[in-house]
Amino acid sequence: MADQDVHSPLVSEPTELPSLRWDEPPEGPVVVLLDQTRLPAEEVELVCTDVPALVRAIQTLAVRGAPLLGIAGAYGVALAAVRGYDVDEATALLAGARPTAVNLGYGVRRAADAYRAALQVDGDPQRAAGAALAAAVALHREDAEASARMAAHGLTLLDELLPGGAHRILTHCNTGALVSGGEGTAFAVALAAHRAGSLRRLWVDETRPLLQGARLTAYEAARHGMAYTLLTDNAAGSLFAAGEVDAVLIGADRIAADGSVANKVGSYPLAVLAKYHHVPFIVVAPVTTVDLGTPDGASVEVEQRAGQEVTEAVGGGGPVAPLGTQAYNPAFDVTPPELVTAIVTEEGVLSPVTAAALAELCAGARQVRIG
Amino acid sequence: MADQDVHSPLVSEPTELPSLRWDEPPEGPVVVLLDQTRLPAEEVELVCTDVPALVRAIQTLAVRGAPLLGIAGAYGVALAAVRGYDVDEATALLAGARPTAVNLGYGVRRAADAYRAALQVDGDPQRAAGAALAAAVALHREDAEASARMAAHGLTLLDELLPGGAHRILTHCNTGALVSGGEGTAFAVALAAHRAGSLRRLWVDETRPLLQGARLTAYEAARHGMAYTLLTDNAAGSLFAAGEVDAVLIGADRIAADGSVANKVGSYPLAVLAKYHHVPFIVVAPVTTVDLGTPDGASVEVEQRAGQEVTEAVGGGGPVAPLGTQAYNPAFDVTPPELVTAIVTEEGVLSPVTAAALAELCAGARQVRIG
Repeated sequence: MADQDVHSPLVSEPTELPSLRWDEPPEGPVVVLLDQTRLPAEEVELVCTDVPALVRAIQTLAVRGAPLLGIAGAYGVALAAVRGYDVDEATALLAGARPTAVNLGYGVRRAADAYRAALQVDGDPQRAAGAALAAAVALHREDAEASARMAAHGLTLLDELLPGGAHRILTHCNTGALVSGGEGTAFAVALAAHRAGSLRRLWVDETRPLLQGARLTAYEAARHGMAYTLLTDNAAGSLFAAGEVDAVLIGADRIAADGSVANKVGSYPLAVLAKYHHVPFIVVAPVTTVDLGTPDGASVEVEQRAGQEVTEAVGGGGPVAPLGTQAYNPAFDVTPPELVTAIVTEEGVLSPVTAAALAELCAGARQVRIG
Repeated sequence: MADQDVHSPLVSEPTELPSLRWDEPPEGPVVVLLDQTRLPAEEVELVCTDVPALVRAIQTLAVRGAPLLGIAGAYGVALAAVRGYDVDEATALLAGARPTAVNLGYGVRRAADAYRAALQVDGDPQRAAGAALAAAVALHREDAEASARMAAHGLTLLDELLPGGAHRILTHCNTGALVSGGEGTAFAVALAAHRAGSLRRLWVDETRPLLQGARLTAYEAARHGMAYTLLTDNAAGSLFAAGEVDAVLIGADRIAADGSVANKVGSYPLAVLAKYHHVPFIVVAPVTTVDLGTPDGASVEVEQRAGQEVTEAVGGGGPVAPLGTQAYNPAFDVTPPELVTAIVTEEGVLSPVTAAALAELCAGARQVRIG
């Protein structure tokens, strides 16, 4: 967060605490997370000394967001390897911690592959652990770079679609530095617009049930001195109807081969509203979010979370619904490609979103990486 | 609530406490409300001995829902008259307590007109107060009757639109006995379907920010033993996409002359989703909700409520967003007539919804009432 000195003095400085870091205190290596369940009230770090602790952190959403989950997964494999735990078991535990974000599996696989490849060379587990850690560090760094490139591509797209600046951007869930090795995905684009002086307003959906918008996106927006306004998810309709939304920017947890986008529940209704109001609906995600192994939206496994998240007040305030109330609580929804104006990746912008363009993007990205 | 004995024994009996009643204890007449802000945790009555107390109850949503607000307004005028307070002042205070629900103004006017007309006859304020009270009682009774007729008309419409029964109905906010002198509006239709054995599932939107769906509709549904499931407002999109919604049933706070429907914020996004998915979007409201003096949706004054309802946890759980966060918090949104499949009133069903049909309905309803 390099811009802490250019904004409103009324807003406190951006935190020095990164979302996730690897540390090696005398007691042994650890993965340290900024506990996102405690934000915005408290900035507390969560120290994971083993994989089960990290898996718990992933499942309770102490660490969340597709790109950051990939990084967490990779460091998790490294943690198991460096500490001498069973790497295969750690790999399975981490990869299965949450079903929808493809990046988690990607990060886990990347570190595990590096570990196994190194092990095959000379059978030295310590060197293999080093390779796993190096893979995690590389992913972390690549993700930060990808963030910066997505932000640049996204800003160019915004300026093309909406000439004249003064963009009023609606976003959902949290897609900033808290989900990324860098400044994030969709939020990074809005932040780039803010820095370029072309962001008039960031409309922040609160994002029920866990309020990642209210708790995390508002926190990041405030720290950057951005002009933002919070709203309940269902108030977005009024904003569209009043012509107050120029574009929707969201992230993605998984993009299927046909261009269907799985993202935080509530994204799909925004896509339908955007279509109805002829407003661009833009998805910002690294290429690693694209999963050519998932053919279409119907094939995306959507995580169903506990009903308590809906029936009880946020922050342990007790029940808000009658005891025994059953809740439908999918964590994600799926937006079909025909509702997506563009997908912005670090490798460039896809518009229109087609299976062929996605396949080409992935082939190209792989080439870039291999070369 | 006549069906308390026909449903699941696991669910406690429906409350004996009515949403609103007039009482005359030795200390003087009072308007007694079931405090809806305390539900579902506690059934507590709120006793209003004067108009300012009733206005406060209206503004804090202790009493709410368009038809019930009309009844509350009428009893409020009667309370002022019977207790010898300034009736004109009471009328102005009550009519201005909340801007969007037309029924509030209607109820206030009806009791005030009765008061003034009686006063003109013989100048006796006591007799005039009696006339105001009689007007409130009549409105209360008429509203209960209107509920029953809306339920019958609505059920007939549902069965026509969705032959085969097993309806899966999505509803928003609370429109049951808690908003009415009877069993409500949209909820009364779902309840009629339940009694007829044709309700497969009632999907209950939680209805942020004040969770009237989670707190009140779930409470009423549980007490009637209906098959219901609670969801965050933004999860409705997934239900539509999965083909799990056969019809949307909502109430209305004001229907403009062109058929635009002002209702709880979040109704309009449901209307857009329903349109996109070819699902009937049905508004259930008494004729008094139609305001021919409001020409169109743009002319509806939408109440903007305090940002705290969004930035702080429900039930006083403290802030969920950073301090200083600004919130956009409209209480209502407006759905244009082209998104409304039908308006169900006690006088019959309007479909399609046109200005001419509404004008005719109101003229007819007035005739019925005059005759």
